[in-house]
Amino acid sequence: RIKGERLWDSLMEMAKVGPGLRGGNNRQTLTDADAEGRALFRRWCEAAGMTVAVDRMGTMFATRPGTDPDALPVYIGSHLDTQPTGGKFDGVLGVLAGLEVVRSLNDLGIRTRHPVVVTNWTNEEGARFAPAMLASGVFAGVHTLDWAYGRKDSEGKSFGDELARIGWVGEEEVGARKMHAYFEYHIEQGPILEAEDRQIGVVTHCQGLWWLEFTLTGKEAHTGSTPMALRVNAGLAMARIIEMVQRVAMDSQPDAVGGVGQVAFSPNSRNVLPGKVVFTVDIRSPDLAKLDGMRARIEAEAAEIAAALGVGCTVEAVGHFDPVTFDPTLVGRVRAAAERLGYSHRNIVSGAGHDACWTAKVAPSTMIMCPCVDGLSHNEDETITPDWAAAGADVLFHAVIETAEI
Amino acid sequence: RIKGERLWDSLMEMAKVGPGLRGGNNRQTLTDADAEGRALFRRWCEAAGMTVAVDRMGTMFATRPGTDPDALPVYIGSHLDTQPTGGKFDGVLGVLAGLEVVRSLNDLGIRTRHPVVVTNWTNEEGARFAPAMLASGVFAGVHTLDWAYGRKDSEGKSFGDELARIGWVGEEEVGARKMHAYFEYHIEQGPILEAEDRQIGVVTHCQGLWWLEFTLTGKEAHTGSTPMALRVNAGLAMARIIEMVQRVAMDSQPDAVGGVGQVAFSPNSRNVLPGKVVFTVDIRSPDLAKLDGMRARIEAEAAEIAAALGVGCTVEAVGHFDPVTFDPTLVGRVRAAAERLGYSHRNIVSGAGHDACWTAKVAPSTMIMCPCVDGLSHNEDETITPDWAAAGADVLFHAVIETAEI
Ligand SMILES: NC(=O)NCCC(=O)O
Ligand SMILES: NC(=O)NCCC(=O)O
Repeated sequence: RIKGERLWDSLMEMAKVGPGLRGGNNRQTLTDADAEGRALFRRWCEAAGMTVAVDRMGTMFATRPGTDPDALPVYIGSHLDTQPTGGKFDGVLGVLAGLEVVRSLNDLGIRTRHPVVVTNWTNEEGARFAPAMLASGVFAGVHTLDWAYGRKDSEGKSFGDELARIGWVGEEEVGARKMHAYFEYHIEQGPILEAEDRQIGVVTHCQGLWWLEFTLTGKEAHTGSTPMALRVNAGLAMARIIEMVQRVAMDSQPDAVGGVGQVAFSPNSRNVLPGKVVFTVDIRSPDLAKLDGMRARIEAEAAEIAAALGVGCTVEAVGHFDPVTFDPTLVGRVRAAAERLGYSHRNIVSGAGHDACWTAKVAPSTMIMCPCVDGLSHNEDETITPDWAAAGADVLFHAVIETAEI
Repeated sequence: RIKGERLWDSLMEMAKVGPGLRGGNNRQTLTDADAEGRALFRRWCEAAGMTVAVDRMGTMFATRPGTDPDALPVYIGSHLDTQPTGGKFDGVLGVLAGLEVVRSLNDLGIRTRHPVVVTNWTNEEGARFAPAMLASGVFAGVHTLDWAYGRKDSEGKSFGDELARIGWVGEEEVGARKMHAYFEYHIEQGPILEAEDRQIGVVTHCQGLWWLEFTLTGKEAHTGSTPMALRVNAGLAMARIIEMVQRVAMDSQPDAVGGVGQVAFSPNSRNVLPGKVVFTVDIRSPDLAKLDGMRARIEAEAAEIAAALGVGCTVEAVGHFDPVTFDPTLVGRVRAAAERLGYSHRNIVSGAGHDACWTAKVAPSTMIMCPCVDGLSHNEDETITPDWAAAGADVLFHAVIETAEI
């Protein structure tokens, strides 16, 4: 078993970097706080005897060598970046549990045939730069490096410039390394494990996603002196589209969700009907046909809603991944490890996207989940217990040892 | 008659201060651009022989003395501040037409018994600091000076600090001066005069307003891993309230409007259901009972909509004025002047709020309107013709002379 207390101490130590306003974290990707978190992680990795390489997307790979010079490494990865009002565990748990696995291998003097590489992927959250899982997407060949460098935050700063600014542009070509296997340990971010009192989620699938960015063009006009009949009200069109997305999601139950997290009115003045409204619809389902059907219906109905109000409507897909089926052999090892360790478990579909969704395109991949209180995540109140954290790390430890071969 | 060309030149000169992005203006109140516009206006007033006083709200009063030392002044006022994406005429026309009236009195060597005072009220727009017509509201005793100083912009800067920063805190006590009469000349900001091909709007009333700032509290949660049934979706509640406001406004036809211009999601991230949504509803009607009825219905239905979603809902009134009936004698003088000058005219109700709505509480007040293309205002494309501008200024000139007495 790993050392639960050491893992927890590291989690609490990392949580001091980029503190939030209410006990969580604001360590958004490519900010100064991100740079500080990276430096701390590098110190810890080096203290554990690992060598840290960085690729051109800023992703960090900390290697513990194996005994067989020809064996491909087993990867354990997740992310240290957070939402603007994020929790202390989303992503961080997976990276620091990887470190804890290596520390425990060191403690026990265990040598593995395959190297073990602990990975911190850049910009998993997608909060500052869409899409999410950007670096693992470039790694898997889904996006080009140039396209990723050109992604802009809401202030117009580019990913490439900001990566250079914080000093984390590595030398290594993105996607050059090959993986024997990839494991990612993450909090569930949903309510199922806690509700059913299971310690471990054996993740078999991840639901697919579309992020649809709508730009609605109305007529900027005075809220007081513009008669109702003459309004070209982009804000009203947005309201109707939000309601319609909710209806499409409800019609697609079970196993589908839809919502809107980001909205920008222009000029955003109390007495001006917005001339422009930009907002992002997030829809997900583990069923590819259903997911694409939801997208088609939302785009068609949005176009009708806008047209009925005389509002212009364009849609750009700013994030996407298909539903993922994880590697059955690795999934089996996770389940067997939980069984062996005496942890209660159940199969689960990941509701959130993870870097494992992209690595699954280029290597056998799977995930392990632990519960989180009330299923709450992307919220500073996100909470897990030290025991939950340790149980998943134990399962990770066992599954990694089995895969990396003693 | 006034000199239309000189008025137009001054309008175009002022429009160079705080240019917008698309040919309009961004000269929001208490910005550096506002300070620059004020300095230009002061230079022009002094060149026309006027003395400029400033009160503690930063409102500027440029006085042309009368012949009777005991006679109260006739005021001509409006505002030089603009929306963030505002036009070149909203407010500015009224101030510079006042200046043109004085210049024409000078040209013609006309001396009036009552002094004539041209006024630039601070923060009419309310775009940066709610409510609108803030300085005239303090002048009329509707708000206290301390309350006004404490108003905050979206960055948390206070009105008082920003007024001091731009160096326009005057010595004069706000509301100390008494008015013989108050005239305000403004673009219609609506479509009626242009559609009916009338040169002059004789403004008999102004509709009343409520600005209702809603704060909706949901549960910040992951858009992907939070099942539909567990969402406490403040954004969905907002969408339903926007639709409901539209319905209430439509049910209140004719003579009522309602809409939403300003929205803020928190944390405003694509994959986070908003924990908090703040937005402002703007409702107006010339009928007091109808206006208050709309407010009551909107607050009641919003509470129901929010409760049905488990969303918390609080409402604060951040702007308000009752419908106004302008002074019949002054209204009659405006109509007679238009008649005498041969300008086509009609009675009109102001759809927008104006400083005249507050001065009407403390002095006989009225307004004059000219058409604007497509009724468009609070939009950089706001347009009027030099002839329209001049016709209203002529009417203002005549009505002011009649009231100030030769
Ligand atoms: N795990 C996680 O929150 N990833 C961000 C991408 C997503 O929205 O699913
Ligand atoms: N005239 C004008 O746009 N005033 C601002 C206050 C309002 O929204 O009516």
